Amino acid sequence: MKHRVGIVGYRGYSGAELVRILARHPHAEPLLMEHREDAAGSPVFRNVKPPRRLACDRQAVRSEQLAVVFLATPAEVSMELAPAMLDAGARVVDLSGAFRLGTPENYTAWYKEPHTQPELLAEAAYGLPEFCRDRIPGARLVANPGCYPTAANLALRPLIEAGVVDRSAGIVCDAKSGVSGAGRKPSLKTSFCEVTENFTAYSILKHRHVPEVLRISGLEEGEFSFTAQLLPLDRGILETIYFRARGVAHIDELLAVYEKRYAGEPFVRLFNPGHMPDLHAVARTNFCDIGAALDPKTGRAIVVCAIDNLVKGAAGQAVQNMNLMLGLPETEGLK
Amino acid sequence: MKHRVGIVGYRGYSGAELVRILARHPHAEPLLMEHREDAAGSPVFRNVKPPRRLACDRQAVRSEQLAVVFLATPAEVSMELAPAMLDAGARVVDLSGAFRLGTPENYTAWYKEPHTQPELLAEAAYGLPEFCRDRIPGARLVANPGCYPTAANLALRPLIEAGVVDRSAGIVCDAKSGVSGAGRKPSLKTSFCEVTENFTAYSILKHRHVPEVLRISGLEEGEFSFTAQLLPLDRGILETIYFRARGVAHIDELLAVYEKRYAGEPFVRLFNPGHMPDLHAVARTNFCDIGAALDPKTGRAIVVCAIDNLVKGAAGQAVQNMNLMLGLPETEGLK
Amino acid sequence: MKHRVGIVGYRGYSGAELVRILARHPHAEPLLMEHREDAAGSPVFRNVKPPRRLACDRQAVRSEQLAVVFLATPAEVSMELAPAMLDAGARVVDLSGAFRLGTPENYTAWYKEPHTQPELLAEAAYGLPEFCRDRIPGARLVANPGCYPTAANLALRPLIEAGVVDRSAGIVCDAKSGVSGAGRKPSLKTSFCEVTENFTAYSILKHRHVPEVLRISGLEEGEFSFTAQLLPLDRGILETIYFRARGVAHIDELLAVYEKRYAGEPFVRLFNPGHMPDLHAVARTNFCDIGAALDPKTGRAIVVCAIDNLVKGAAGQAVQNMNLMLGLPETEGLK
Amino acid sequence: MKHRVGIVGYRGYSGAELVRILARHPHAEPLLMEHREDAAGSPVFRNVKPPRRLACDRQAVRSEQLAVVFLATPAEVSMELAPAMLDAGARVVDLSGAFRLGTPENYTAWYKEPHTQPELLAEAAYGLPEFCRDRIPGARLVANPGCYPTAANLALRPLIEAGVVDRSAGIVCDAKSGVSGAGRKPSLKTSFCEVTENFTAYSILKHRHVPEVLRISGLEEGEFSFTAQLLPLDRGILETIYFRARGVAHIDELLAVYEKRYAGEPFVRLFNPGHMPDLHAVARTNFCDIGAALDPKTGRAIVVCAIDNLVKGAAGQAVQNMNLMLGLPETEGLK
Repeated sequence: MKHRVGIVGYRGYSGAELVRILARHPHAEPLLMEHREDAAGSPVFRNVKPPRRLACDRQAVRSEQLAVVFLATPAEVSMELAPAMLDAGARVVDLSGAFRLGTPENYTAWYKEPHTQPELLAEAAYGLPEFCRDRIPGARLVANPGCYPTAANLALRPLIEAGVVDRSAGIVCDAKSGVSGAGRKPSLKTSFCEVTENFTAYSILKHRHVPEVLRISGLEEGEFSFTAQLLPLDRGILETIYFRARGVAHIDELLAVYEKRYAGEPFVRLFNPGHMPDLHAVARTNFCDIGAALDPKTGRAIVVCAIDNLVKGAAGQAVQNMNLMLGLPETEGLK
Repeated sequence: MKHRVGIVGYRGYSGAELVRILARHPHAEPLLMEHREDAAGSPVFRNVKPPRRLACDRQAVRSEQLAVVFLATPAEVSMELAPAMLDAGARVVDLSGAFRLGTPENYTAWYKEPHTQPELLAEAAYGLPEFCRDRIPGARLVANPGCYPTAANLALRPLIEAGVVDRSAGIVCDAKSGVSGAGRKPSLKTSFCEVTENFTAYSILKHRHVPEVLRISGLEEGEFSFTAQLLPLDRGILETIYFRARGVAHIDELLAVYEKRYAGEPFVRLFNPGHMPDLHAVARTNFCDIGAALDPKTGRAIVVCAIDNLVKGAAGQAVQNMNLMLGLPETEGLK
Repeated sequence: MKHRVGIVGYRGYSGAELVRILARHPHAEPLLMEHREDAAGSPVFRNVKPPRRLACDRQAVRSEQLAVVFLATPAEVSMELAPAMLDAGARVVDLSGAFRLGTPENYTAWYKEPHTQPELLAEAAYGLPEFCRDRIPGARLVANPGCYPTAANLALRPLIEAGVVDRSAGIVCDAKSGVSGAGRKPSLKTSFCEVTENFTAYSILKHRHVPEVLRISGLEEGEFSFTAQLLPLDRGILETIYFRARGVAHIDELLAVYEKRYAGEPFVRLFNPGHMPDLHAVARTNFCDIGAALDPKTGRAIVVCAIDNLVKGAAGQAVQNMNLMLGLPETEGLK
Repeated sequence: MKHRVGIVGYRGYSGAELVRILARHPHAEPLLMEHREDAAGSPVFRNVKPPRRLACDRQAVRSEQLAVVFLATPAEVSMELAPAMLDAGARVVDLSGAFRLGTPENYTAWYKEPHTQPELLAEAAYGLPEFCRDRIPGARLVANPGCYPTAANLALRPLIEAGVVDRSAGIVCDAKSGVSGAGRKPSLKTSFCEVTENFTAYSILKHRHVPEVLRISGLEEGEFSFTAQLLPLDRGILETIYFRARGVAHIDELLAVYEKRYAGEPFVRLFNPGHMPDLHAVARTNFCDIGAALDPKTGRAIVVCAIDNLVKGAAGQAVQNMNLMLGLPETEGLK
């Protein structure tokens, strides 16, 4: 039996990735929901049967009995659509930042605009299964994590929990992302000639993804320095994380923290000492690869974490959340 | 002594290349002319002193006594601006397709709109110095050639003139261009994620640059098959040209046609048999590199021609034309 | 039930692609065969369980009862290994050029060395299923086609057979390939800094893949001009083919030739008039995409054909052949 | 009058860049010195007259009266050649790591081999003109700095000197380099298909360039965390540097430290608050671009520093050193 699920924003890169993944999912039938904002840009359906199209309204949700609607839309569109979709009986996985930050104040502080759905914001479950798995199955609305925070939290939280990070010295997260992370809407910043053979930093110390890391990792803003940088490539995020370790005398002890925390996790892969992740290994997969190094003399530690920003950083994790919400095996359609 | 010259459209790639070249030119002082169409997109001044800015009107041309105005603008803007600039006493080098096709009928056939300045169209000199050097020094208005036709005509016309091409079998020009040839205006087609790791053909058999090749080479449309293709790189055009040779029994004889025709030409470089041009060698130069191969048994011949689309294919050739117009050495500022 | 199949040369790009495809194949279990030439270079197993390793000898073939051995090795190694593998009871799919050219004379003319296994050469079936499907199921030894000829023959042979090509005017095939087509062995030619932002032509008029096109398409050498060119990207081949059409007055008639010939073919996709293939659509698939344009006035025609050089151009087609040899559905593991 | 200067290792990327720069230098005539190690790989002379070739021995240095010999060679070759070149009367600029680390013990600790020329090591001047300008003019042997340390020291030392860095919290330098930094010798690591669409970290916490940073900046090893990472592009280094500021309450105060220190420096460019360097702006120039950000509440500070690894990071800086050694204006041939 297949659950019918709707995709709004299927013309963007995350939306197209949802189509790609769900078209192969044994228990889901994806349907395209035609939102007015989608007008520009032709869709990308590579090697999948183009799904059926629906209107993006209550009526369509009801008549098709959609189990889940994915919102691969800007935050303001998600705030507008989520109540309607829920009201019509669907559950919602939202890929925007609209429902990630817990309180309207936090949202406004980082997104510079009021939150129009404070009750849904309070209700939303944060969809990082490795740390929030309990609340997702029962949630009506899941806030799918941002791409940078997914990698940062998977790399940092086990260490913070285990108390092996000297927070007083500060934690640095130097993040690099492929261009697809900036979305499909044409802009000078993502034009080929501006990006190729180039590299630069942006949103230094004020990126909207920072509060998601703080919220999940438990760090304070003053303890966490984050820089996002644009790689001249299509997809992938690699984060290089620096901190001072405490209470660990050997790299094996640091890696043991991860091994213990991630035992049984299907999508986290740990690297042996001396090996580090790269982007090729995670491209088009839902894996999160983690490697680490430690200088025992000085306690300086480095963790490298890699994901595909469109899969574990967006559409793949959204499907992982959907699987949990629908009582399906968590890895269904993702391996 | 420095001639003051204006640049309209300096925010685009060709305009920025004009600034780069002219900033180093010993006898020119570039000035930026602020046209209303330029509103979007910040300018690119890499490693040059930002030139002064002027309004883009008659008054500015007169008070600054501009010797030449470069129009790095769309054809419809060039048609509007050229008369005003000329009227105010400047000479004009236009980098658009507005004045390249000789007659309004020809223009309308390929650009699908009426020509609003038929008299200037008739007056304009075609600015391919290697073949039209006589008319350029005295011209008020020079139509700077398109990037594809520059390479195609430099490769083809000597052979056509020498009669070594069997025109009855047809000539094929398979052209590949870097993305900067599509201009700086953001579009999905030139977005990084759509271009990287991709390759495709466009404007098959109906590219607007075809009539320029026909006009200069002397070929008929039915004899010439042209395809433009987008390379995942910033700058450079490489054209692979196929034809059946006649009257030549050895590659040396084919190359001798070029050697004779291009003896003394400062910007055409010929390759020895067995060697072929590539894009690295012409990047950021005004050179046109040409190599050839011949199968004497069957007469099948291949010519490979490479230029930098923004230099010999646009801004460099425009400065070469300016040098001729101002009585300066043709290579000034270009070597 | 799973057939055990061996892969020699699994450290190269085609070999790694075989591992990737076969690891997901429902009826095959891939095993790695350790040949002495494989010493350099670590293998690439991305997101698949590393297969078991065997020696590369008769004993291993017999004791494991290998149904098929894939040789992703240079031609001289394939000539050495094929007899041993066959002798030990396996059937062989050879991905090199060793067994593609029909006669030792033809092989020596293009590969500049004697053929050491003329009897096997005579016995080998050419593995282009769309045209040679009858002989493959019963063959002991299948010569998997070259990447360029796969695309060229799929594009050309239906037209030649239908008589819609004016062969007297010559056919041009301008081919462009991603760098993985040059193999994994490090060389200056395939070094990143030499390739990025570059484009060039090689093996002009004398590429070893030409005789495969002639053999399958039925063209004569003097009728066919072929140039191979290196794109600055990882994978994909796009060929732009030019010819003079005869007996067809409209693009629909040209496309109808393909539609008739390829009705029911699972891996050939035809494009509607006005649309052309690109490399993104075929990447990591076994599809061959074909589009065409025609100028009815002059008969000039252009066909664009795209494949992934490592899949339909190598490993994917090899598995397609294996499926035929083992009596499995032809598309098993490939969709 | 032109000084004759020799280039050993001209087939590599740094050597080729030396040829490119010196061919345009008004007071130098470059000559190629044919060392036995150069056997593999054809040279790259793009758009310059190929210089004359000499043997690489004392006799050639003497008979041509070479003023300076550039060694763009591996450290072990530089150790062998430097004494001979000096002995024959030339002065030497060495681009390898052979003479950068002050003491044989330091060299052996990081390069894992004995130093064969300890006296020359002691004599060598470190060629970072912005900080070591006094000793360079009189030096016989200049150790040209590594690419990563050039950027790191230009970014860090003014801040360390001014006491605005809280060293107790540790300094992080996350460095990214184009592939040309890895040299021209073909290797799997720098092959196109391994690099494109990929990104990874290497030499974590143990890169040979670390001791150069420590030596010049005055930092201790335990205070400095350094990671080198390979960008999928040709040339450029960007370093993102994180530290806790002290004694500065506003970004302007941090930038004022640089402004004061670099007033009059021809090759350091400072960015206004809110702007950050990128690689396009420094490509093919000898500039070092620096931008910074500060969170006054917490003292977290970030400096971004960009250079062209082959110019300010190698050949350009080498020519800057040559200019100082020969009493020429420091910027000659570099602007």
